[in-house]
Parts: sequence; structure tokens; C-alpha cells
Amino acid sequence: MQALYWDGSELRIRSDHPLPGSRIDDGGSRVAPDRGAIRTALVKVHLAGICSTDLQILKGYMGFTGVPGHEFVGSVVDGPQDWLGKRVVGEINFGCGVCDNCRRDLARHCPNRRVMGIVNADGAFADYVAVPVTNLHAVADSISDEDAVFTEPLAAAFEILTQIQINPGDDILVLGDGKLGNLCAQVLRLTGAKVTALGKHADKLAAIKRAGVRTIQLHDWQPRLFDIVVEASGSPSGLALALSAVRPRGTLILKSTIAGKHEVSLAPIVIHEINLIGSRCGPFPDALDALTAKRVAVAPLIEAIYSLKDGVEAVERAAQAGTKKLLLRP
Amino acid sequence: MQALYWDGSELRIRSDHPLPGSRIDDGGSRVAPDRGAIRTALVKVHLAGICSTDLQILKGYMGFTGVPGHEFVGSVVDGPQDWLGKRVVGEINFGCGVCDNCRRDLARHCPNRRVMGIVNADGAFADYVAVPVTNLHAVADSISDEDAVFTEPLAAAFEILTQIQINPGDDILVLGDGKLGNLCAQVLRLTGAKVTALGKHADKLAAIKRAGVRTIQLHDWQPRLFDIVVEASGSPSGLALALSAVRPRGTLILKSTIAGKHEVSLAPIVIHEINLIGSRCGPFPDALDALTAKRVAVAPLIEAIYSLKDGVEAVERAAQAGTKKLLLRP
Repeated sequence: MQALYWDGSELRIRSDHPLPGSRIDDGGSRVAPDRGAIRTALVKVHLAGICSTDLQILKGYMGFTGVPGHEFVGSVVDGPQDWLGKRVVGEINFGCGVCDNCRRDLARHCPNRRVMGIVNADGAFADYVAVPVTNLHAVADSISDEDAVFTEPLAAAFEILTQIQINPGDDILVLGDGKLGNLCAQVLRLTGAKVTALGKHADKLAAIKRAGVRTIQLHDWQPRLFDIVVEASGSPSGLALALSAVRPRGTLILKSTIAGKHEVSLAPIVIHEINLIGSRCGPFPDALDALTAKRVAVAPLIEAIYSLKDGVEAVERAAQAGTKKLLLRP
Repeated sequence: MQALYWDGSELRIRSDHPLPGSRIDDGGSRVAPDRGAIRTALVKVHLAGICSTDLQILKGYMGFTGVPGHEFVGSVVDGPQDWLGKRVVGEINFGCGVCDNCRRDLARHCPNRRVMGIVNADGAFADYVAVPVTNLHAVADSISDEDAVFTEPLAAAFEILTQIQINPGDDILVLGDGKLGNLCAQVLRLTGAKVTALGKHADKLAAIKRAGVRTIQLHDWQPRLFDIVVEASGSPSGLALALSAVRPRGTLILKSTIAGKHEVSLAPIVIHEINLIGSRCGPFPDALDALTAKRVAVAPLIEAIYSLKDGVEAVERAAQAGTKKLLLRP
């Protein structure tokens, strides 16, 4: 099959990449798609999204080699009978199924997890991707492929609502006007709280504003304090600004995964008794419900759709500052 | 009066320090102890404790000059009639009394606050200290001066219980076997949770063990995960160890105020969705209740009691690694 392949130093398109589950292992045996007790479905990819994490991976994040890509929508072409032919999206953390975290329904924190396109599992920048059946979610007919492919990042935004109690009167700042910032702002707005987005780009802020979110361009920023601040800028300097904008005993949500170490003064966290919460992958059902009810607008986030064969070019364009979401169609 | 005075470069004992409230201001006028609408009491200090924050101040923390000291017990010798003669301890944050935080009973987060012996207010390493009446708490006769002087740091340990919900089955690690670590471990033990203290000093760990806390000496540490980790070691390296010991979606309480910036990798906070909470001053009534009921043992924490006139020597000794609590008696 066709797949975009990262060998640790170069990203290239391969037309002869083995179909997931038909790969020959080092000993010459066929590796079955099912891993132990975990049943796996083979999904034909309709669309896949390029995410900032993919770009970090190409800089060495997680030491991954293989097929990147973890945002996708597709349909099941092989696997259990009751999933065959269904249009699906899939959660990206493949838990071991037996550890404490997996048994507590926290497979996304399984210490032995594989992560699609990130840790020890080929991803969705390919004709087909293998996904454990427990990770699949059926997509309602009313949701287009172009919307459904946003389920994973939208779920990550909904994760915030599973972590903290948001009250209607809360004054919330979202730092960053990129894709993640946009989705976080839209999701937080659903709670009835006052949401302000702070970013660099007038056009991106305008898109966020259409969702009922107040917006401030960075050069107009007048420091003030918020009950909750969401750091979704993906830039190391964002954290210092975020910390300075949280009221005493307020909450700072860290959404961006930034590789590397940072010089941080921790004294403000203690002095102002700030609650800093890391936030990663989230609940797919909440994201799918919001897409079904059209409570969140994701189409304006799309920059362009590339053919998978032009994937290298698409990834290069995605790395340019200010690019909106690029999708790959196998 | 006699007072220990820090001029920004040298700590020395002054025998002619002006009595609080009788100081002559730059214009030659007498400065009344009351500040605007805030009524102040003059407290004769019985005992004052030397805290790590005092040692940080002598390294330049907060740019403070004046009389340090914020842990004390004393008796009211001047002020409102109903406080006269009472034995008291006092909260250290002097709020403005009119801002949003002060009105929400969060004077300790008032942006314009003075802090006893730390920010714009003389402290308790003196014969007398001036304290806003709203900051005073009466001390029950059954509590000795030697116990009562621990009210402030003990309240800081109780602060944790106001910030997070602790369940009886929770597995908690307290990092640091110093005074703060000891008090945090004892307070957390009151909740019925399993508490483990990790520290460097066998003798200090033995004291914590007597409170029903499991103890591990650092060289015997086998990495494992806890639901809640309390960083009370006061050392920058403590944070990295603390982060590595929090389970996914677990909580890390930062109790130590450490000046300066630190190289921190924030990725684990996001990947493991850790909840990091800064924790500072706490509720005096909870601390006084625990001392009255003798549910917490503080006497074993005392190293020695110095006469105030030997305060410089006491502070030098307090700065030596491993020293327990040193008290000053005017």
C-alpha cells in the first residue's frame, strides 16, 4: 500500500509499504493484526489530518520511526463482523488491556501503551491503518469526513471539561489562535463561561470570534488576571505569559506538548497557589456529539486537502508558521 | 526595643529599634500603628521561630529590609480592649482590606498585601511586633508557647487539605524530612491516607515515623508511583524526583518556595496529565485545633531556644544543613 514513511531522518512516500497485519517480522513469520487478546480492525483511511505533534516527531520527538498520523476517519474493511463497513474514527492510545490503568478505563495512560503514529504503532498517513477494536467509534452519517477527521483534536479540547469544573461566570483566557487554541476556545464557550482568545493572527482570531469568543491580538494585550488560562500556543514563551495571567488560586491548563526543557520560575505557582494541570487526549464521544449537533465549527480550520502521494509537500507546508489544518486523502 | 535587623547586606541586633507604631516617618511625624481602616495590635513576642524563608530573605528573596520573622506567639499589650492581655498567634499576610481578594476572605492573596517580615512589614524577631487585629488568633491555655509558635508552619501544612480532596485509600509521598515535610506528613496522616516520607536523614525520618508515617531513606528509594506527591524538600532537584513519582492524572503539591529559575521539562505534566498545585499559607484555626487536641507533635522539631540577643548566631546555625527548628526568645 501507499504510505508516508519516516525513517528517523527522512520522510518519503512509499508505494510498497506492507499492509498492516500482513507485515513479515524479523523471523520471517506473518504478524497477525490481532495482538494477544486485543482484536484489531483494518481501516481504509478516507482522510487524515497533519498535527503539530507530527511535526515534532519529524524533529525527533519520541524517537518514532514508521508511518506517522493519528487524526483520521476511515471505514473498516477487515475485522470483527459487527464493525465491517462502518465509518469510524479511532482513539490513538493502544493500551495493553490488562494493567491497572487499562482496567480503570484509562488506557490512554497505560505505561505499556503504543500510540498511533507516535509510539510503536504505524499511523494513518497511509492507505490503511490497523486500530484495536476497543479504540473505534462509529461516525454518524450526518458528519462529513472533513468534520470527522477533527474528532481527535476536538476530543483533546473536551478533555479540559473532564478535568476541571467550569462555572458560567468564569473568566477564561485561551492563549494561542492555532487549531488547538481555536478548538479549546469553542469548547470552553459551550459552558457559558466568558472566553477570551489571545493570539498573533488577525485572520485566525476572526475565525474564533465567530464562535462567540472575545479576541485580543497580542500587540493589544493589556495584562489582567483570569480565573482559568489555557496554554495552547505551543511556544515556550507562552507559559510565562500564561502564568502571569492566572489569578491567585486560579487554574492554568497546559495543552501544548513541547519537547525539551524550559527555564521556568516556579515561585509564582507557589506564591499565587496556582493549579497547573496537564491535559492531553480526550473523550471521543463528547467530540462526536458536538460535531453531530454542529455545536463546534471545524471546517473553517481547513487550509487544504492534499493527495497522500503529495504528503511530503503537505508536511513541509504544515511546518510553515500560520498554516491551518492540512488533510491527506489516500 | 531590641530587634534583629536586616539592612539588605548585614543582619545585626539593634537595641534601639523603634517600637512598632512609634516610628518616626520621613516627614518627622509619628506613624500610628493603625493603617487607615485597619486596626493594629501591639504584641509582646514570647517566642519566634526561624524559618527557611527567613534564610532565603537573607539571600535577597523579596528584596526585604527590616525586622524578619513571621512565626511567633506573644501577648497583646496595646490595641482594642477585647484583645488586651490575650495570648495570640498571627496570620502573616496583611491585606489592604478593600480589594476583591480581601473581600473574598483571601487577604493572603491581596495584590497590595504586606507580609510580616517578608514584604513591607517588620516581623517578630523583636521585643514587639505590630499585627492587624483581623490577623490575630487567640491561643488556648492548654497550648504551650513552644507548641503555639508552630501554628504558622502547621497551618501551611493544613493548606493542602483546603486545596485537594484526599481519600482514605490514597497513597501519598512527602518529599523532604525537614520541618515542613514533617508537618505535611503528620497532617496528611490525619486523613487516614497511606503516607510515605522520603528524605535524607535517618534521625529526622525516625521522628516522622513515630507519627505513623512510613519512611524511606533516599539511598533506599525504589521508584514507584503515588496518587499524591508533596514536594517539601526545598531543593530544585526535588521537583524532578517528585514529577517522576506522580501517577498519571495524579497530583503534585508544591510546598517549597524556591527563588530563581529552574530547568524543567514540562512534557511529563502534559503527557501524564499531572495536576500541579502551588500551596502556601494556610488556615490558623485548623492548626490551633490540632495543637489543642495534640493530634500533631511539634516539640520534637525543636533544636534549641536562643535568646533574641544571640539571634545572629541562631540564624547562622539555622542555615546549617540538618538543623531543626531554632526559636528566639526576646
